Amino acid sequence: MGWKTIYSVKARKSFRPEREMQGNMEEQVTREDILIEALPYIRNFYGSTIVIKVGGNALVEPDIMDAIARDVVLLHYVGIHPVVVHGGGQEITQKMRQLGKEPEFIAGLRVTDAETLEITRMVLVGNINQRIVSMICKHGGKAVSLSGNDGMLITARKQVPQKVMVEGVEHQVDLGFVGETEVVNNEILKTITDKGFIPVISPIAVDVNGEHLNLNADTVASDMAASLGAKKLILLTDVKGVMEDPSDPGTTIHRLTLAEAEQLMDTDTIKTGMQPKMKACINALHAGVEKAHIIDGRRKHALLLELFTDYGIGTMIEREKSEI
Amino acid sequence: MGWKTIYSVKARKSFRPEREMQGNMEEQVTREDILIEALPYIRNFYGSTIVIKVGGNALVEPDIMDAIARDVVLLHYVGIHPVVVHGGGQEITQKMRQLGKEPEFIAGLRVTDAETLEITRMVLVGNINQRIVSMICKHGGKAVSLSGNDGMLITARKQVPQKVMVEGVEHQVDLGFVGETEVVNNEILKTITDKGFIPVISPIAVDVNGEHLNLNADTVASDMAASLGAKKLILLTDVKGVMEDPSDPGTTIHRLTLAEAEQLMDTDTIKTGMQPKMKACINALHAGVEKAHIIDGRRKHALLLELFTDYGIGTMIEREKSEI
Amino acid sequence: MGWKTIYSVKARKSFRPEREMQGNMEEQVTREDILIEALPYIRNFYGSTIVIKVGGNALVEPDIMDAIARDVVLLHYVGIHPVVVHGGGQEITQKMRQLGKEPEFIAGLRVTDAETLEITRMVLVGNINQRIVSMICKHGGKAVSLSGNDGMLITARKQVPQKVMVEGVEHQVDLGFVGETEVVNNEILKTITDKGFIPVISPIAVDVNGEHLNLNADTVASDMAASLGAKKLILLTDVKGVMEDPSDPGTTIHRLTLAEAEQLMDTDTIKTGMQPKMKACINALHAGVEKAHIIDGRRKHALLLELFTDYGIGTMIEREKSEI
Amino acid sequence: MGWKTIYSVKARKSFRPEREMQGNMEEQVTREDILIEALPYIRNFYGSTIVIKVGGNALVEPDIMDAIARDVVLLHYVGIHPVVVHGGGQEITQKMRQLGKEPEFIAGLRVTDAETLEITRMVLVGNINQRIVSMICKHGGKAVSLSGNDGMLITARKQVPQKVMVEGVEHQVDLGFVGETEVVNNEILKTITDKGFIPVISPIAVDVNGEHLNLNADTVASDMAASLGAKKLILLTDVKGVMEDPSDPGTTIHRLTLAEAEQLMDTDTIKTGMQPKMKACINALHAGVEKAHIIDGRRKHALLLELFTDYGIGTMIEREKSEI
Amino acid sequence: MGWKTIYSVKARKSFRPEREMQGNMEEQVTREDILIEALPYIRNFYGSTIVIKVGGNALVEPDIMDAIARDVVLLHYVGIHPVVVHGGGQEITQKMRQLGKEPEFIAGLRVTDAETLEITRMVLVGNINQRIVSMICKHGGKAVSLSGNDGMLITARKQVPQKVMVEGVEHQVDLGFVGETEVVNNEILKTITDKGFIPVISPIAVDVNGEHLNLNADTVASDMAASLGAKKLILLTDVKGVMEDPSDPGTTIHRLTLAEAEQLMDTDTIKTGMQPKMKACINALHAGVEKAHIIDGRRKHALLLELFTDYGIGTMIEREKSEI
Amino acid sequence: MGWKTIYSVKARKSFRPEREMQGNMEEQVTREDILIEALPYIRNFYGSTIVIKVGGNALVEPDIMDAIARDVVLLHYVGIHPVVVHGGGQEITQKMRQLGKEPEFIAGLRVTDAETLEITRMVLVGNINQRIVSMICKHGGKAVSLSGNDGMLITARKQVPQKVMVEGVEHQVDLGFVGETEVVNNEILKTITDKGFIPVISPIAVDVNGEHLNLNADTVASDMAASLGAKKLILLTDVKGVMEDPSDPGTTIHRLTLAEAEQLMDTDTIKTGMQPKMKACINALHAGVEKAHIIDGRRKHALLLELFTDYGIGTMIEREKSEI
Repeated sequence: MGWKTIYSVKARKSFRPEREMQGNMEEQVTREDILIEALPYIRNFYGSTIVIKVGGNALVEPDIMDAIARDVVLLHYVGIHPVVVHGGGQEITQKMRQLGKEPEFIAGLRVTDAETLEITRMVLVGNINQRIVSMICKHGGKAVSLSGNDGMLITARKQVPQKVMVEGVEHQVDLGFVGETEVVNNEILKTITDKGFIPVISPIAVDVNGEHLNLNADTVASDMAASLGAKKLILLTDVKGVMEDPSDPGTTIHRLTLAEAEQLMDTDTIKTGMQPKMKACINALHAGVEKAHIIDGRRKHALLLELFTDYGIGTMIEREKSEI
Repeated sequence: MGWKTIYSVKARKSFRPEREMQGNMEEQVTREDILIEALPYIRNFYGSTIVIKVGGNALVEPDIMDAIARDVVLLHYVGIHPVVVHGGGQEITQKMRQLGKEPEFIAGLRVTDAETLEITRMVLVGNINQRIVSMICKHGGKAVSLSGNDGMLITARKQVPQKVMVEGVEHQVDLGFVGETEVVNNEILKTITDKGFIPVISPIAVDVNGEHLNLNADTVASDMAASLGAKKLILLTDVKGVMEDPSDPGTTIHRLTLAEAEQLMDTDTIKTGMQPKMKACINALHAGVEKAHIIDGRRKHALLLELFTDYGIGTMIEREKSEI
Repeated sequence: MGWKTIYSVKARKSFRPEREMQGNMEEQVTREDILIEALPYIRNFYGSTIVIKVGGNALVEPDIMDAIARDVVLLHYVGIHPVVVHGGGQEITQKMRQLGKEPEFIAGLRVTDAETLEITRMVLVGNINQRIVSMICKHGGKAVSLSGNDGMLITARKQVPQKVMVEGVEHQVDLGFVGETEVVNNEILKTITDKGFIPVISPIAVDVNGEHLNLNADTVASDMAASLGAKKLILLTDVKGVMEDPSDPGTTIHRLTLAEAEQLMDTDTIKTGMQPKMKACINALHAGVEKAHIIDGRRKHALLLELFTDYGIGTMIEREKSEI
Repeated sequence: MGWKTIYSVKARKSFRPEREMQGNMEEQVTREDILIEALPYIRNFYGSTIVIKVGGNALVEPDIMDAIARDVVLLHYVGIHPVVVHGGGQEITQKMRQLGKEPEFIAGLRVTDAETLEITRMVLVGNINQRIVSMICKHGGKAVSLSGNDGMLITARKQVPQKVMVEGVEHQVDLGFVGETEVVNNEILKTITDKGFIPVISPIAVDVNGEHLNLNADTVASDMAASLGAKKLILLTDVKGVMEDPSDPGTTIHRLTLAEAEQLMDTDTIKTGMQPKMKACINALHAGVEKAHIIDGRRKHALLLELFTDYGIGTMIEREKSEI
Repeated sequence: MGWKTIYSVKARKSFRPEREMQGNMEEQVTREDILIEALPYIRNFYGSTIVIKVGGNALVEPDIMDAIARDVVLLHYVGIHPVVVHGGGQEITQKMRQLGKEPEFIAGLRVTDAETLEITRMVLVGNINQRIVSMICKHGGKAVSLSGNDGMLITARKQVPQKVMVEGVEHQVDLGFVGETEVVNNEILKTITDKGFIPVISPIAVDVNGEHLNLNADTVASDMAASLGAKKLILLTDVKGVMEDPSDPGTTIHRLTLAEAEQLMDTDTIKTGMQPKMKACINALHAGVEKAHIIDGRRKHALLLELFTDYGIGTMIEREKSEI
Repeated sequence: MGWKTIYSVKARKSFRPEREMQGNMEEQVTREDILIEALPYIRNFYGSTIVIKVGGNALVEPDIMDAIARDVVLLHYVGIHPVVVHGGGQEITQKMRQLGKEPEFIAGLRVTDAETLEITRMVLVGNINQRIVSMICKHGGKAVSLSGNDGMLITARKQVPQKVMVEGVEHQVDLGFVGETEVVNNEILKTITDKGFIPVISPIAVDVNGEHLNLNADTVASDMAASLGAKKLILLTDVKGVMEDPSDPGTTIHRLTLAEAEQLMDTDTIKTGMQPKMKACINALHAGVEKAHIIDGRRKHALLLELFTDYGIGTMIEREKSEI
C-alpha cells in the first residue's frame, strides 16, 4: 500500500531514490490536512446510525450511484452504521410502458392497481435494490437487500382514500395498493447491522391479509431512522434543497429548526414534490432523530461533503437551533 | 388453546360437562400416537440444517406453496434450520412473453441475453421470493429473502460455452448470462439463521466484473447444503422421483447409494430434466451432506411425510447404504 | 430415517419399486395433516415453560410413566421448557410397611416422624426421581434430578400445627417433618434449563436449622410455576378432573375462571383430595401463570392431547375467560 | 465484620478505647501469618478442579462430615472448583439389615441383587447425598446432588463375572447389578460448576437397557477427575494412607511416583481394601491428573492441611517425581 | 505442594515414614482452624470491591509495602476485587530537595508550581506506582498502574484559592497545580478488573485545558470507592486510627457511625492531618460505601487482620450502627 | 456539524441563502475526492494492529507530538488498533544533568547505574508517557499508559556485557540496568485494545529478581508488533529513512525486501544509530509482521501520508517484494 502510484509507474533500480516524488510531496501536504480535518466529524458520528434515502437521478445514472455506493462503504469503515432506502419512480414508469401499461396519475399521485403493484415490486426489489447491493459489495461493503416483507420489517395497512383537489373539486381517491407503515419490527435490521452488513431497503410491505403494498420511500426512510434511533436522516434528491423560490436554486434555505419547518409546510414554498420529504424529516425529528437533511444527490460525494467537512450543503432541519 | 374447536361451537353452561366430547375423544387417540411417532425423527433432526429446493408447480399453485410454507415453519419450530432455495422457469417464460420477448432455447437450455437476465432477476427476486417470504411469515416464520448478491453469498463466473448436440451435430453454445458458483461465503446465512430467521434464496449472483448471472436453482441448493454442512438436501419436483421408466411413475427408484447414483448418471434413465437434479444431489453428498432426496412437491405436506413419519417418498440418495 | 418400517422388512432388489407402499400412502395422508394441525399450538408454546406434576398411578405403572417421559421429551424438542415435579405417596406407604413401620394418618394426613421422613426422602429422591430421570434420558431427553435442597432451590419452614376435625372434634395436629415453602431460589433451575436439561424435582426441602422436610408435591409444582413465570401448570392425577359429583366422571367441569375456582373451593364439590390441587392451581394463577390444568394422567399421552390438539381434556382454570 | 468478638462482649461507651484488645493483638499476630502462608497454595490451585472422594467414617460421624463440608466451601471461595463423590457401604449394610435382608459377600465383595440395588440407590442418592448437599449449603456453598443417571453423566455396563479366589479355589462370580463406567458425559458437571455450584455425586449409573447399576465410588471419583482434567484427586479414607505394614500407621508411605505405585500394586502391601483406591489413583494419573492423594479423612480439616499448608499428610502419588 | 518444607530438608529413603512430622502435626492443628475461621469473612467479601489507600511509611519501608502487596494478592485470590491508591509526600519532598528545589508550604499545604508538579508526577507515576506494581506482580497478582489521566479516569479542575489562617490572619492561597475531582469515568477500571487485573492508581489527573494536576490521594481513594460501589474503603496510615487525644494511641476510637464522624469533624480531635482522611471516609459512606476504615498501615498484614479475623483494628466508620 | 465554519461566522437571516458558499464549493470538490481516495487504504487496514514507535524530536516538540496524537486517534476511528511505544533519550539526559548527574556513554551507549535507571523510569513513565496519554485523550482517544511491568507485559533479563570497540580495542562493557526482552505476555494489551483503549508503552521492564531494567524502545516496539501479529511496524525517527549516504537525504532508499535489509546490515550504510532500528524491523518481519517502515517523524501527519495516500515516504521493508 501507500506505494502504489509511484512504484507502479516505473521499476525501482539498485537503491536509487525516486527524486520525482519530492515534487508531489509538496502537493501532498494538503492531503493529510484534509484527512485530519475529518477527525472531529468521524469521532462525532462514530457508532451512530445514519439512514440515507436514495432517489431520483442517482438511481438512473450509474456513475452517481457508484459514487454513493463508495461513500456508503466509507461510512461503514469509519464506524458509522449506514442504512440505505431507495425509491425508483422513473424506472417503474419506464418498465410499465415497456409492458404496455400506461401509468395513471391523479393529482400527481400514481394509481397502483394489482398489475402496477407487481411491476413496482419487480423493479424495486428485483432490479434497483439488486443493483445497489452489488455496487456496494464491489467497493468492499457487505450489502444485503431487504424489503418491508423480510423478517416482517414493516407491517403496513392500505392507505385510506385521499382527498385530492382536481381542477378545484375535491375528490376521494383510492390509490390502490398503496400502504402506510403500521408496525416496524427492526429485529432483522439489528441482526445484520450488528454483524457489519449494510441493509438496502425497498419500500414494499405486506398487510395483515397478506397483500403486498407499495410505500413512499421517503416515509420508509423516516420510519427506519425513527425505529433505529438514527443520528441523521439524509434524503438525496434532484434539487439543491428546500428553496424559497423552487425555481431558483439561489434561494436554497440552509438551516431550519423543526418549528420553522412545520410552519413552512403550510406555505407555497413547499410544493407537491417536496411535501412528503419535509413530512418525512419532520416525523423523524419528532421521533428523536437529531438532524434531517435534504441535499442534492446529483453532486458526487455529496454525503462525504455533508458529513466530513466544514461545508454543509442543501437544507438541514434540526430539532432546536444548535450552536454547531 | 386445546379447547378451541369444542368451545367455540357452543357456550358452556353452569358447569355442565360436554358429553359430546367423549365421542371425539376416541377418534383422538390416534392423534397423540401420531405426534409421539414423530419424536425419534424430530430428535434426529434437532439442530440440523435442511436445504429445500422448491420448483415447478409448487411455485404457481398458491395452495401447494402455502402448504410448503407451513411445513417450513413447522420445521423451524421443531428445532430444524430450514433454508429454502427456489426456481421459477415457468413464470419467467410467461413474463417474457408478456414483455413481447420470445424465450429462446437451444437443446432445451434457455439462452439468457441481457434483457432475459433482467426479467429473470425481476421475476425471481422481485416476485417469487417476495411471495414465498410473505407466505412463511403469515404462518409465523421469520423469513428473509436473499439472492447470491446479498452479502456476497455467491460469487459466480460466466459459464463457458457448452457442447450441445443439436440434431446429431455438436455445437458450442454460449448461453449468455448464465453462471456457475465460484465461491460461497455463507456469513450472511449464518448471521440470520443464528437468530431464527429462515432464508429464502433466489439463484442470482454476480461475477467479478459486477455482471449479474442466472444460476441453476438445484445447483444453488446443493451449494448451500454443502457450505452449511446440511444434514439433508431435498429437491421438490413435479415427478414422483427418479424413475426407471420416466413415463411410468410405478418405476420410481426409492433408494440409491451415491455409487449407484453416479452409475445411473450415464444411462438413459436420467433424462435431461433429471440430470441437473441428480448432479446436485451427488455433489452435495460428496461434500458431506448425509442424504439427498428428490420428491414430489405436488403432494401436500410431502416434506412432513418424508421427515417425520415411517413412510419415505420419492427417491433417496445416501452416501453409503445405511441400516435404517 | 423415514424409511425404517418399510425397508427393514424386506431387501430392495434391482431398483424395483415397493408397490406395497402405495396403499399405505393413502392412509398416511392424515398423518401429515395431524402434524401440521399441531403447528399453531407448537408456535404458541415455543420458548415457554410448562410445569408438570406427576402423581398417583402414573408413578407405579411403568407404561404410563414411560409414555409421560416420551411426551416430556417431545415437549423439549418442540421448544418448550418442561419442568417435572413428582409425588409418591403410594410407594412411601408400601416401603414403610416393608420396613415394619405402619403409616399413621390423622384425618387423612400422613404424620411424618423422623423415621417416616427418612423413608419418604429415600423413596422420593432415591427411587422415584431416579427412575423418572432414567426414563426421560432413555427417550433422548437430558433429565436431571433435583430436590428442594439442591442449590437451595426451596427453603421451607415447618408447618404450624393444623386444625383438623376428628369425629366432629377439632384437634391441633402437629404433622411432624412437614414443611411449607418459604423461599424459592430458582438459580439452579435456570442454570440447567438454559442448557436444555429437563429438571425432575422431588418435594423435599430444608429449613433454617438444617432439618429436612417433606412438602406437598402439588404445592411445589405451583411454586415452581410461579417462580419461573410458567405459561402452564399441569397436574396429572388419577381422576377425570374437577367433577361436580366426584363419584360421576360424567360431571367433569371443563373450564373454570380463577374467580369461579375460588368460589368452588368452599363447596362440597372440592373434597379433601382435590383441595390441595385446586389451591395449587389458584396460587399459580395469582402468581401470573396463564392457565392451570387438572387432567387424567392415566390416559396415555394426555399431555400431548391437551397441548397439541384441538381437544382439551380434564379441567382447565384460567385467570379470565379467554376467547378460545 | 472483623469486630465481632471484641465488641459483642461489652458495650462501647463514649469513645473509650478497648485496652483489653492490646493483649489479644499479640496473639493475633500469628493468625495473619498463617493466612498469608496459604497464599502460594491458593495461587497454585486457583481455577483448578479438585475431585474429593468421601467415604468411611466421615459419612457416619456428622462432625467430620460437617468439617469436610466447610472445607469444601472454603475451597470454592478461594477459587477452586471442588467436586465431591461419596460412598456409603456402612449405611447400606445397616439399612439392609433394617429391612431384614442380610448382605452377602463373596471374597469381600458385596453381591448386589435387585433388592440390594434398590436399597443401595435409596441410601446413596436419597440419604447420604442429600445430607452432604444440605451441609455444604449450610456453610454457604451451592451444592447440587447428582448421580451417574443425571444428564447421562455416566453410562455403565454390567461388570462381567469376576474371578475370585475362595479358599484357594478360583470361582467365577457374578456380583449382580454392579457396573463399570463406559462413557462419561460431563456436560451437566460443566454446566453447574461454571455457575459456581458444587456437585455431589452418588456412584449410581444406568446401562443401555435402562437397568440401574452400582459403581465403585473410588472409581467414579477417578473417572470424574480424568474427565474434568482435575489437578488433584483426593481420596478421604479411614487409614493414614498407604502403609508398608497395613497394621502399623508408622509405616505410612508419604510419596510415590506413578511407576512406584504400579510396582507396589503386585505386592502384599496393597491389600484388598486399598487396591481399588490405588487403582483409582493410578488411572487418574494416567489420564492426566497431576497428583492423587490417599489421606485420613477422620482428621478434621485434613483437606485444608493437605492443600494450604507446608505439611502434607497421608500418601501422595504423582506422575513423576516433582521438585515440590 | 503441601510437602515442601518436610521434603526439602532431607531426602526420603526407601519408603521410610517421616516420624518427625508427627510432632509438627500437633502444632499444625491450629493452622487449619485459623483458615476455616476466615471462611465467613471470605464468603462475606466474595465478589466485592475494596479500595485500599496506601500512604506514609508503608511507601518508604520496602518490608511493609511487600507485606501489603502480598495481602492485596491474597484478597484477589479469595474473590475480592482490590483497588490500590497510593500517595507519596515524603518521597516527593526528598526528590525536590535532590533537585535543589525547596518545598514550600503554607499552613501545612504544599504549594505546587509547574516544576513541583513535574517532580510530583515523576515520583508518583514513575517511581512509587511502578514499584508497587512490580511487588504485587512478584507475589502473583496482575497489577496495572494507572493515573487519573489513563482512559480519562479522572477529570479534575484546578482548586479554587483556599482560605488559610496564617498567624491568625486569613489569606487567600492559590496552591497552584492542585486539583479536585470533577468526573470519574471508571470504564478503564472495570475493563481491567473484569479480567482479574489489580489497578494501582496515582493521584494525578488532567483538566479541560490539558494541564496536569496533583490530587489528594485520600480523596482519590474515596472517589474510586464511590464510583465502583465498593464495599469498603481502607486508609492505611501511620497512626493507630482516629484518637480522642492524637498524642495518645490509647485513646483510639474503634467505631463511629457516619453521624458521629460528621459531628467529630468540627472538634479539635480531628487535626489537620486527619481531616482529609475523615472527609474521604464520610464522602465515601454518603456515596454508598458500606464501611470505611482508618487503620495503622505500619502493622504487618493489617489488612488481613482487619478483613479476615474476629479482631478489628484502628477506626471503623459505618453508615449506621450495625449489629456486627 | 458540517456547518461550523460557515455559520459561526455570521448569523443566518430570514431564510436568505449563503451565496458566498458557492465559491468555496468549487474548492471543496477535491476534499471529498481525497477522502474517498483513502477508502482502499482504510479498508485494507480495517481491524488490523499497527505499532508506532515515537522517538527523537517528536517527543520534545509539542506541535509534532500533538499531530501524531491526532493521527493516532484517527487511526482508531477508522478501525485500526494503534499501539504506541515511545523512547526519550534527550529528556533523560537533560533531567540527569538537572539532577547533577553527568550521563556516561561508552562507544555511544549509555551506562545505566541505579540512579540513572531511576531517572530514566521517572522521565519515561512519569513524564513522557503521561504527556502522550493526555494528548491522545484530548483528541478523543482513550489512551492508557503501560510499562513492561504492568500486568507483566514484558519480562526481561539483564543484558550480558557487550563487546564494544573503543579506539580500536575491544572492551567487555557492562552497561548496567539495561535489559533484553525475555517473555512478552500481551494479556493486558489485548484486554484494553479489545475495549477500544489505545496503549502507550514505556520501555521499562522487570527481571526475575524484581530489578527494573531499561529496554531499547525500538526493540520493545518490534516485540509488541511480533506478539500482537501487527500488520505494520512504523518507526518515527529524525531522518528521512535509511540512506545510502547517511549525510545525503537524497539517497534515501525507498523499498527493501527483508533479504536486502539483512544484507545491508553488514555494510557501512547502516551506522550505529540506524542499526537497532533496522534490527527491530528485521525481527518484526521474521515474526510475521507484513511491513516495517522507518519514516521521518518530524514531518507533520507522516503517519497519515504513509497509511492513507498513494504516496509512501521514508524506507519500507517487506518480507518479499510485493506487487504494489
